[in-house]
Amino acid sequence: MNKTPHVAIVGATGAVGVEMLHVLERRQFPVGNLTLLASARSAGKSLPFHGQDTPVKELTRDSFEGIDIALFSAGGSISREFAPAAAAAGCVVVDNSSAFRQDDSVPLVVPEINADDVRGHRGIIANPNCTTAITLMALYPLHRAFGVRRIFASSYQAVSGTGAKAIEELQRQVGELVSGQPVTREVYPYQIAFNVLPQVDSFLPDGYTKEEMKMQNEGRKIMHHPGFRASVTCVRVPVYRSHSVAVTAEFEKPVSVGAAREVLSTAPGLDVVDEPARQRYPMPLFTSGKDHCEVGRLRMDCAMENGLSFWVSGDQLLKGAALNAVQIAEVLLRA
Amino acid sequence: MNKTPHVAIVGATGAVGVEMLHVLERRQFPVGNLTLLASARSAGKSLPFHGQDTPVKELTRDSFEGIDIALFSAGGSISREFAPAAAAAGCVVVDNSSAFRQDDSVPLVVPEINADDVRGHRGIIANPNCTTAITLMALYPLHRAFGVRRIFASSYQAVSGTGAKAIEELQRQVGELVSGQPVTREVYPYQIAFNVLPQVDSFLPDGYTKEEMKMQNEGRKIMHHPGFRASVTCVRVPVYRSHSVAVTAEFEKPVSVGAAREVLSTAPGLDVVDEPARQRYPMPLFTSGKDHCEVGRLRMDCAMENGLSFWVSGDQLLKGAALNAVQIAEVLLRA
Repeated sequence: MNKTPHVAIVGATGAVGVEMLHVLERRQFPVGNLTLLASARSAGKSLPFHGQDTPVKELTRDSFEGIDIALFSAGGSISREFAPAAAAAGCVVVDNSSAFRQDDSVPLVVPEINADDVRGHRGIIANPNCTTAITLMALYPLHRAFGVRRIFASSYQAVSGTGAKAIEELQRQVGELVSGQPVTREVYPYQIAFNVLPQVDSFLPDGYTKEEMKMQNEGRKIMHHPGFRASVTCVRVPVYRSHSVAVTAEFEKPVSVGAAREVLSTAPGLDVVDEPARQRYPMPLFTSGKDHCEVGRLRMDCAMENGLSFWVSGDQLLKGAALNAVQIAEVLLRA
Repeated sequence: MNKTPHVAIVGATGAVGVEMLHVLERRQFPVGNLTLLASARSAGKSLPFHGQDTPVKELTRDSFEGIDIALFSAGGSISREFAPAAAAAGCVVVDNSSAFRQDDSVPLVVPEINADDVRGHRGIIANPNCTTAITLMALYPLHRAFGVRRIFASSYQAVSGTGAKAIEELQRQVGELVSGQPVTREVYPYQIAFNVLPQVDSFLPDGYTKEEMKMQNEGRKIMHHPGFRASVTCVRVPVYRSHSVAVTAEFEKPVSVGAAREVLSTAPGLDVVDEPARQRYPMPLFTSGKDHCEVGRLRMDCAMENGLSFWVSGDQLLKGAALNAVQIAEVLLRA
């Protein structure tokens, strides 16, 4: 890999695309050249990168000539249409959509967990689901120490996980409600302001949503743990940024709060915020804009042997998307 | 019991007290006389009842002479101080606080579940925790059919569960944020607007909150099921009204979605709203102001044998508080 690669961002004007630019800047990623790509609708705009206005070009199949790394975040159908062409042009794609995550020939990577899997790529590397990535940042260190069997989890997911239009929707609805106007909807099927929606992504025939099954399916692949089971309820809440997850995990080996805290306190990319007496615990308010995820509310589960309950919160635009993608690109550079 | 009883509401000006008045009106409860009681601060105000302004008097130990039924909703310390005096004066107290719920001599009642327990009262009957009551409305019918062993649950609790001041706090913080002013706090330890707080009530030494343990402790007593176990995470969300709970339940007997739906569809006080294909599921937006709780998102749990996952939502000022209290008073009238 070129040590000052030509980087492209596909979906550059979206909520995650903009974060990717910030993360590349902030981490001093050695960008040799930068190409910003988006739909025809956004082409012609420009975005600042290290103080320089960079034009957004229309994404076409010919966009990837000479590009070394392409960070995709424009949805599954765009990835399915353009990522193989990009890979065929010799570019390594880091794809933030769900399109290739379950493809056996595509590594699915959280660098703190399975960076080595990057090696096996054939041009496409998948970035995991945001809620899964954030949960695994706390679960995987515990798994290594105690061997996780299964989890029961419920999510509290921010609107920015849906994209920039959902942020606007929450802002608009709050304004409408404050001024006594009728609430308008464009993105979500129901009002999200002052409401919670027990639906993230679409429904499967068995009653789960696709989002809910990602924790088990992607968790198995990332942790190399085919027997891992996850019972999840995913819920959208009126929070702008950062997902939170309430997790109860059952382990093979006996676990204690002290031993778990010791394991978590040295885990990479994770901060333990767990002082109930001082009312200190992770919250989206404080994890927004932060690279590290936070874990707290550690306690022995009261309904399960070898069970531990905890609460994790992390910025899903960062660790759940842009940061993780750039970290994968950093692994590529080191390889 | 007098068939047109003299009813007192203690904490009449609070969020639940005001609902109690509305519920008494709406259900045509045969109120012979009405006495509204509150702290000295609120004394002198008046509240309408069946079109008539009713004065709010200061609560004292002598307030209960001649009163038949007193609905208490003014917090645990007021209940501990005044409920025994009220009972001694011959009044039957229906207490919405947690003060007496675990007292063996005090029935803890959800009328749809254990109305008969009212009979054993010695002057005080306890109204359950709001999240517990709403969860049990769906769980108990399933328990009768399949025998519940344990549940794993996470709550999404509205600010009105904290009281009228918390409703004002969310409104004020939203206004402050919309107008770019600093956010002020009085009720919650952190900003609740566009945030979620993984703390409801205070912490116990084992890391659970009191609220989280109510599900197990009160569930055992209400369902007459001493072996029931509940692992719960309680979370405050920026919703004005109606709590929601994501529940995964393990049963003794084999369960199916079809059999569960059949059981739930005939359960009193509960509506099944479960059409994923049409994006129909329970939400606080639609259960606010509604007597019945709603259950949906029924699915076989993917991490447990004989496990069923579901999502329940209900107005915690109604079924979780005022409605349930008035229903207990109705049981008293029938006795």
